[in-house]
Formats: sequence, C-alpha cells, structure tokens
Amino acid sequence: MAQPLISEKEMIHQLTLLFLQNGFNENKAQTLAQIFTSSTLDGIQSHGINRVPLFIEYVKKGIVKPNAEPSCVSAMGGIERWDGHQGPGILNALKCSDRAIHLARESGMGLVALRNTNHWLRGGSYGWKIAEAGCIGILFTNTTPNMPAWGGQQNRLGNNPLVISIPRPEGHVVLDMAMSQYSFGKIHQYQLNGESLPFAGGYDHNGQLTHDPQKIMSSGKSLPIGYWKGSALSMVLDMLATLLSAGQSTYEIGKRELETNLSQIYLVINPHTFHDEDITSKLINEIITYSHDVVPNNAGRRTYYPGERTLATRMHNKIHGIPVNADIWNSILNLIDG
Amino acid sequence: MAQPLISEKEMIHQLTLLFLQNGFNENKAQTLAQIFTSSTLDGIQSHGINRVPLFIEYVKKGIVKPNAEPSCVSAMGGIERWDGHQGPGILNALKCSDRAIHLARESGMGLVALRNTNHWLRGGSYGWKIAEAGCIGILFTNTTPNMPAWGGQQNRLGNNPLVISIPRPEGHVVLDMAMSQYSFGKIHQYQLNGESLPFAGGYDHNGQLTHDPQKIMSSGKSLPIGYWKGSALSMVLDMLATLLSAGQSTYEIGKRELETNLSQIYLVINPHTFHDEDITSKLINEIITYSHDVVPNNAGRRTYYPGERTLATRMHNKIHGIPVNADIWNSILNLIDG
Repeated sequence: MAQPLISEKEMIHQLTLLFLQNGFNENKAQTLAQIFTSSTLDGIQSHGINRVPLFIEYVKKGIVKPNAEPSCVSAMGGIERWDGHQGPGILNALKCSDRAIHLARESGMGLVALRNTNHWLRGGSYGWKIAEAGCIGILFTNTTPNMPAWGGQQNRLGNNPLVISIPRPEGHVVLDMAMSQYSFGKIHQYQLNGESLPFAGGYDHNGQLTHDPQKIMSSGKSLPIGYWKGSALSMVLDMLATLLSAGQSTYEIGKRELETNLSQIYLVINPHTFHDEDITSKLINEIITYSHDVVPNNAGRRTYYPGERTLATRMHNKIHGIPVNADIWNSILNLIDG
Repeated sequence: MAQPLISEKEMIHQLTLLFLQNGFNENKAQTLAQIFTSSTLDGIQSHGINRVPLFIEYVKKGIVKPNAEPSCVSAMGGIERWDGHQGPGILNALKCSDRAIHLARESGMGLVALRNTNHWLRGGSYGWKIAEAGCIGILFTNTTPNMPAWGGQQNRLGNNPLVISIPRPEGHVVLDMAMSQYSFGKIHQYQLNGESLPFAGGYDHNGQLTHDPQKIMSSGKSLPIGYWKGSALSMVLDMLATLLSAGQSTYEIGKRELETNLSQIYLVINPHTFHDEDITSKLINEIITYSHDVVPNNAGRRTYYPGERTLATRMHNKIHGIPVNADIWNSILNLIDG
C-alpha cells in the first residue's frame, strides 16, 4: 500500500484535535501532538504516529491520566525525586528534562529521578531537547520485562532504553538505544516481510537463540545486545532508576496487566561549565571526522555518528511530508469526532 | 602447566618490592601492589598480575611517570576537571574516585573528568571502592582505537570500558564491561586453546565478521557489543570523556605509538541523599531475587547479578590462594633485584 505523505502542520493539527477530545487541555494536547509528530518526522514511526491509537487506549483505560501533574517529592542539591502520578509519559519527561536542565545551569549538573510515569514514547525526543538547550543529557527508563537475563529462560529484564545526547552547533549527537538487539516492532517488520533477522534477536520456545522473527514474536523473548553484557547493563539501569526514584522496578512493573508506573533518570550536565566551547567543539568534530574517514565495509555505504541520519530524515520529511502507514493514519482520523 | 597458588599477602609483598625498585615511593608502591593484587584476587588476571610486566615496561619507557601527581585544573560546583600528568592510571583513578566521593557526600553528586592519565587496569577496582564508600559510581575511560565503527573497515573506536557500581550490604553490584564483545586477552585465550569463539567477536582482513580467534588477532579488529549499538555507545562515551576533560580522544590516542594520555569520567552519586536506605535496599534485592528466580537455560547453571561471581572468586582465593600463570609469576620475580 502506498504511504501517504502528511505535512508536519497537518499531523500536529489532527493529533491536537484528538488529544483535546480525550481529556487533555489545549496546552497539553498541543505539546503531545508536537512530540508525537516530531518523532514521526524523524522517521521513528514506531514511537510516533503508530503508537497514537495505543496511547488513546491507555487514556481510555485510565492507565494514562490526562490531568495528572508531576510533582517534586524531595530535593537535595542538584538531585531531585519526582512523582509522575501516572500522567502522560511525554509530558512528565518534558517536565523532568526541563527541571534537570535548570539544575545543571545552576550548578553544572542536575539529576531528576522520576517514578510512576508512563511510556515516554521516543526517549530521543528529550535527548534532542536537552541538546537544543546546550546541555548533555543521559537518560534512561525501565520497562516491563521482555528479555531473559543471560542464562535464564523467563523474561526478567526490560529493554530499558538509554539516551545520551551531546550538543553541537553542526548537529547534535543523540544516541537512543534500547538494551535489546532489536525492538519487537522491528522484529515484527521482518516477520511481515518474510525475512530472517541479520543477527540473532531473541529466543525460541526452547531457549535457543534464533534469527527467526516468527519464533521470537511467539516466545516474546528478545535478546540483549552483547548477550551477557547487555543483560547486565539492562539490570543495572533498572536498579539505578528504581533506587534513585524509590519507584517500581521491572519486576514490579511486570506484575501489572499493562505497562505503567515506570521509573526513569534524567541526568543533565552543562558542558559550558568551563567556558571552553571552542576547544570542546573542536574535539567532538575531530572524533566525528575520524569516524567518517574510513573505507566502507559495503561499497556505496558509509559510517554515521549517532543522530546523523535522524537529522537527514527530519530535513527530508520537512520538505516532502512525513510518510505514514495509511491504515494507521485512517484509524487515527476515525478516532476524531466530527 | 600447573598454576601456582600465591597468597594475597605474598603477592602484595613482592609487587611492593618491584614497584619500590622502579621509582615509586613507599606509599605509592604499596597502593599499586594492593590494586594489582585485588584484581588478581578477584580472578581478573588479565588486568592484574598478568599486566605487571607491561606496566613496568611503560614506567621504564617514561610513558607512566612514577612521580607525577594529579591536579585539579578547574572546578565548578560538583564538577571538576583534573589532569593526570601521565602518572600511573591506578593512582590517578583512586584519587579521582575519592574526590568524586567527597563531592557526592557534600552535595549529592560529584563528577571528576580526568585527562592525561594512563591505563587504569581493572576499572571495576574503582567501582568496588566507590560502592565500599556507600556510593553509586558511573565510570568510563577511552582507549586506543581497537574496533571499527559500524559500517567501516578501519579501527576508529576504543573498547572504552564502562563501570557502574551500586552499594549493597549483602554484596555490591559492580558492572565492569568493555564495549567490545570480547577483549583481545579473551580472544587470545580461545586461540591458545584452539577453540572457536561462541559468538562473532571481530572481523577478518576482508571485513567479514568471524568466530575465528586467529583471524581477529591477525586483523586487530574487534566487534562492538550489539554491532551498530555498541559502536554508537563507544563513540559517545569517548565524546563525553574527551569533552568534559578537554583531554585526548581515541583519535588522538591512536596517533601515539603506545597507549597513554587517556580521558576518563568519574561520576559518583550518593544514594543516601534521601535517607531511605531501607526502602531502596529492599528494591534492589527484589530485582536480584527476581533475576535469580528462573529456570536455567542449561541444566545445573544459573543467573548472576553483576559482581556476584567476582565476590565468590574473591572469597575462594582468599582462602585457597590466588592462581597465577607460573611463567608470569617467575618473570615478575626475575624483575625484582636481590
């Protein structure tokens, strides 16, 4: 099926209407629409437009509470603990990013540990935002269990996305990676295309590693990056988010029918602390130039720094419109009354 | 060859003698001996006793300067920038860990960015130390280039070890992982044993992924964990360490004949900031219990939290002595005069 191209403005307009009709005030509806659209504009449909119907379902089920406002539970110097009160993950994430930026501007570094929030959709959105504010961001979230710990059969770990962003005048560096080798969205895409995964991406029902997307979708067990290494890193990120927020761990989240009450970390560092942007900017560019200056492994391809392709996709879609799945776009339009 | 068992006390004694004879004062020699020994006691021979001859070689070549003292270059709130002046990586790392602990006790969080240091040997040593002090540690270092960036043929990334430690009365959680799937030491071990790697661990001379340790040792190109994901994470860690310390990047380090002038980050968070150790301790234990409570993938095996096996090895070796390679132990004894 041909993918319709929707303009950024049109997408924001329709989504704002939808959110207004689902209990969000004007300001919140617009902000949500902007973030869902910006992820889609950047080519991350899976955590943008494709996820809107599920978001509305969560609102209707009372999992995401439109009127909840995050609040600061306790503060000590540059560290604060916030409670998201099950408000929309996007709005809670924006608030906590802003707060951590504020703390970093005051004293060089700020950390906000957030509990009881909902899915933040694309974590990279907040990495880009923090970089736009001229700061370094290190963010992560826990999730419901979807990967076995190395050596075990049952899912015990979240894929716990990690975002690291570094501001740069020529284009921010934004890493946005889950701890799983592939997302279930990506595995599902391979399944739909009738293709095998290029690398092992999960386990079959017998606990054997497999490239077969069908078997992984069926077992529900994805594989951590680097096998035992990503398994350990995922567990430690869950510990940090849970401990610092005194929130729910992947273990507690896994007891629920639907994924909610997530714990997250927003660590922001002000790189202008030492007033030497000229020097540090040059150092980052040296690293990027060095990484680009290689013979590609496949003729006609090249290497990229994290965020480089996102920026190219954003520029392209701003001009040509945002490609969306026709079924999903129509289902969203059908959700809007009148 | 049978592996001699050396007591902790004897190893510290002999190494202290060796370091005293190589330009270190009493205090420095003892501290270095303790750290080299503690890594070996924990079963990390590759970054403990096995590395002593190379360390002495670096001292003799003037790469590691025995009399250099790290100094604070600039400070702003909880962030400090230090210069290691090419002193021994172990002593610089201990100093910066202590300093970051001090800052975290004062204001909840402390970050020390260190430049111009040498190899810290086992990064986990400082993770254990920070956890012993009741704090959370997030540490990383850059290295000389030893992995291609995803899609390229030439080495452009360091394996950039990352350490995350979390204090826990029943045994600290300490993750210590390089960004490469296997260290060259481990790959070399497979080669010596005539075995194939269980998973792809690097590239052959044609840029193809391979399980063959011989081909990887020959190309010198190791593989990042999670392919494109670890490639991106490694690059971003190098950027953070370089930018915050205004030090040398993997690019600059790679221009040198021998690996030196590394850049490192020591971020310490005080988890007692909110005075709820009882709650957070329970949360961490829930995560660990959950991860243990699985059917093992291989009968008779089990899952472990990061640091769990290290602790078991430490306890065993304290009682039975530390196994060392006879050739290496003899070569060290031969380095000691008289």
